[in-house]
Amino acid sequence: MAGTYKITELVGTSPVSFAEAVKAGIAEASKTVRHMDWFEVVSESGRIKDGKVEEFQVRLKIGFKIER
Amino acid sequence: MAGTYKITELVGTSPVSFAEAVKAGIAEASKTVRHMDWFEVVSESGRIKDGKVEEFQVRLKIGFKIER
Amino acid sequence: MAGTYKITELVGTSPVSFAEAVKAGIAEASKTVRHMDWFEVVSESGRIKDGKVEEFQVRLKIGFKIER
Amino acid sequence: MAGTYKITELVGTSPVSFAEAVKAGIAEASKTVRHMDWFEVVSESGRIKDGKVEEFQVRLKIGFKIER
Amino acid sequence: MAGTYKITELVGTSPVSFAEAVKAGIAEASKTVRHMDWFEVVSESGRIKDGKVEEFQVRLKIGFKIER
Amino acid sequence: MAGTYKITELVGTSPVSFAEAVKAGIAEASKTVRHMDWFEVVSESGRIKDGKVEEFQVRLKIGFKIER
Amino acid sequence: MAGTYKITELVGTSPVSFAEAVKAGIAEASKTVRHMDWFEVVSESGRIKDGKVEEFQVRLKIGFKIER
Amino acid sequence: MAGTYKITELVGTSPVSFAEAVKAGIAEASKTVRHMDWFEVVSESGRIKDGKVEEFQVRLKIGFKIER
Amino acid sequence: MAGTYKITELVGTSPVSFAEAVKAGIAEASKTVRHMDWFEVVSESGRIKDGKVEEFQVRLKIGFKIER
Amino acid sequence: MAGTYKITELVGTSPVSFAEAVKAGIAEASKTVRHMDWFEVVSESGRIKDGKVEEFQVRLKIGFKIER
Amino acid sequence: MAGTYKITELVGTSPVSFAEAVKAGIAEASKTVRHMDWFEVVSESGRIKDGKVEEFQVRLKIGFKIER
Amino acid sequence: MAGTYKITELVGTSPVSFAEAVKAGIAEASKTVRHMDWFEVVSESGRIKDGKVEEFQVRLKIGFKIER
Repeated sequence: MAGTYKITELVGTSPVSFAEAVKAGIAEASKTVRHMDWFEVVSESGRIKDGKVEEFQVRLKIGFKIER
Repeated sequence: MAGTYKITELVGTSPVSFAEAVKAGIAEASKTVRHMDWFEVVSESGRIKDGKVEEFQVRLKIGFKIER
Repeated sequence: MAGTYKITELVGTSPVSFAEAVKAGIAEASKTVRHMDWFEVVSESGRIKDGKVEEFQVRLKIGFKIER
Repeated sequence: MAGTYKITELVGTSPVSFAEAVKAGIAEASKTVRHMDWFEVVSESGRIKDGKVEEFQVRLKIGFKIER
Repeated sequence: MAGTYKITELVGTSPVSFAEAVKAGIAEASKTVRHMDWFEVVSESGRIKDGKVEEFQVRLKIGFKIER
Repeated sequence: MAGTYKITELVGTSPVSFAEAVKAGIAEASKTVRHMDWFEVVSESGRIKDGKVEEFQVRLKIGFKIER
Repeated sequence: MAGTYKITELVGTSPVSFAEAVKAGIAEASKTVRHMDWFEVVSESGRIKDGKVEEFQVRLKIGFKIER
Repeated sequence: MAGTYKITELVGTSPVSFAEAVKAGIAEASKTVRHMDWFEVVSESGRIKDGKVEEFQVRLKIGFKIER
Repeated sequence: MAGTYKITELVGTSPVSFAEAVKAGIAEASKTVRHMDWFEVVSESGRIKDGKVEEFQVRLKIGFKIER
Repeated sequence: MAGTYKITELVGTSPVSFAEAVKAGIAEASKTVRHMDWFEVVSESGRIKDGKVEEFQVRLKIGFKIER
Repeated sequence: MAGTYKITELVGTSPVSFAEAVKAGIAEASKTVRHMDWFEVVSESGRIKDGKVEEFQVRLKIGFKIER
Repeated sequence: MAGTYKITELVGTSPVSFAEAVKAGIAEASKTVRHMDWFEVVSESGRIKDGKVEEFQVRLKIGFKIER
C-alpha cells in the first residue's frame, strides 16, 4: 500500500440492513475524509422496538491514506 | 437507559440471509420477552449442503428492561 | 457429527453484499472440497473507492468431513 | 463450590458511579433470583448528556446455585 | 438446524474430572430444560485444598431449541 | 440512534478514583467535541509511587453524533 | 525447532471423552500428514441427545514440519 | 522507562469498593516488592451474600523495575 | 475470599491425560507454594510423536493467599 | 502521566522492516500531532509479491497529551 | 481484491530475527504456493538456550488467490 | 517437554529495536532464572520523544523448567 494510513472509527445506521448501515456510514465519512481505502466491521448491533428491529448498526474502522 | 436490563442469548436461523436470521430470532423471542431494547451480533455461521449455503445462523445477545 | 472434520480458511468477495461474498467463497471452495458441512464468519471487511464500497469481503472458516 | 451453578447476565445502571450500578443490578436480581454467589464485570459504559456523565452502566454475569 | 435456539450458561462441578463436571452440569440442566442440542466449553477451573485438586469446574454454554 | 456516529479514544486521569478519571476525560473532550452520546471503558490502569496509587487512568471510547 | 512448520486445523470427535476426541483427530490426521510435532486445543464442545452427552468434540491446531 | 520490568499478578479484595480493593492489593504487595511503577486492571468481580455485594475483587498486573 | 491473593502461572505435563497434567503441575507447585486456593486452565496443548500424542500439557494460573 | 491523552490509530509501512514501518508511521504523524508520548503495536502484516515480502505494515495506536 | 483467497497458516524460524523468520517462512511457502498476496503475524515466540535467544519464531497467516 | 514449567512475565526495553528489547529482557532474567526454555511476545510498545521513537518495549512471557 506504501505510505501512511490513518484509521478512523464510526457507527453507521440504517432501518433496512447491515449492508445499508455500512454504506450510510461510509457515505457520511466521505463528506470529510478523502482517499478512503478500506473498512473493517468491528461489531454489529441494533435497536428493537415493539418486538421488531428498528435500526441496524455497524461499527466500522475505515483506513485512508494520509496525503501530502 | 435507567433501570436494570437483562441479557438473553439466542441463535436465529434463516434459509435466506443473516438479516432474516436476526429478524427470525427476535420475532421468536418477542413471543415470550417484552420490552426488548437492543441486540448485539455475537457470531455468524451457517450450514452447507451440496456445496451451497442451506441455512444462515446468527448468534444474538438481546437486552430487555426488567419491568416491575 | 461423528468422524473427523478439517477446517479450511478463505476470503470470499463480492461487489454486492456480504451474503454474496459468503456464497462466492463457498461456491469456489466447492470446486475442490467435498462434503462441506458448515461455515463460520471470522471477519468482514471491504474495499472503498471514490467514497463508495467497491467490494465486500468475508473471511470464512469452512468445516468438511474427512472421507475415507 | 459443589453442585451446579447458573450464570445470568444483566446491566445495572446508576447516575452516581459504577459501584452503585453494580449494587443496583444485584439488588434488582435479588428480587427473583435466590442463592446468588458471585458476579463478574463484563464491561463498563455510560451515557453522556450535555458533556457530562448522565448514567453509569455495568454489565455483569451473576452465578447462583441451582437449588433442588 | 432450522428454528430458534436459546443459549443458557452454567457451571458443572465434579470431584473426579472435567468430563464428569460437564456431565453433571448437563444432567442438572436436563431436569428443567428440554431439547438440549449442543454445548460449548467456555472455561475450565477448579478448587485446590491441601495442595490437591478438590473440585473440577467447567463453564458451559448449552443450546436448546425453542419448542412451540 | 439514527444518523452516523464517530468514535474517539482517550485516556482520562485522576489522583482520586477511576470514576473521576472518566469524568476528567469527558470534561476535557467536551471542550472540543459536541453531541457526545455514550462512552465505553476500554481498560483501567494506574501509576504507583512509593507503594501507593498515585494516579488512576481510564481508557475510554466516546461516541458522538456527526452533525450536519 | 528450526525449519518451517505448517499448521492445520481439524475437529476430532469421540463418544467417550475429550481426550479420546483429541486422539481420534490426530490418528485420522496421521494417515495423510507426516512429521506432526505438536497440537493446541482451540475449543471444546459436544452434542447432547436426550439430556446426555452424545459426542465430545475438540477443535485442534496441529503443527508439522515441512520436509524437503 | 529504560531497564527491565517484571510483572506480577494478584487479586486485591475489599468490602467497600473496587478502588479500595486495588489499594489493598497494592498495599499488600508493597510489603515485599519494591520499585512498583504501574498497575493494570485485568478483571473485576465479587462475592454476593444474601443478595448483597459482600466483597469486591480486582485482579491486577503490577509492573516493577528490576533493580541491581 | 478476603485478603490478597497472588497468581502464579505454570505448565503441567503428563503422558496420560490433561487431568493428570493438571494434577502434576499442582503437585509440583505444592512443594514451594502454600495456601493454594484455585486454578484456571489457560490453554491445553501437547506433543505428537510418530503420529501419536506423546505428552499432554496444561497451562494453569494458580491463586494462593498471601499469608502474613 | 496527569492530564488527558488522546489515542490515534494508524498504519506505517516500509519495504525494509517492521521497525522501519513503526518509525515511518510516527514520523508521518509528527507532522500534524504534537506531544506524542507512547505507541502500542496493534498488529503486524505485509504485502507479498513474487513470493517475497514487498512491504511491512505495522498498525499502531499513538497516545499524545491534549495541550491547552 | 476480487476473486476468492485461501489462507494458510505456518511458522517461520530464524536464528537471527523475527523479520528473517517471516522471510524464511514465506520463502519456504513460495516453493508450493503461488500468487501469495499478503501475510499477517499471528504471534511471535522463540527458543532460549543457555540464557540466550537461540531461535526466533513467527506464526503467520498467508493469503493467496485461488487461480483457475 | 516433560516435567513442570513456570511462566514469568517481564518487559524488556531497548533504544534500538524490538529484537534488542527481547534480548535485553532475557539477559536480565538469566541473572536469576535458570533453565529458561522459551519465550512468547505478549505485546510491543514504545516511548516517543520529540516525534521520534525513544524506546522500544517488548512484554514477554518466559517458560523455564522447575528443577529439583
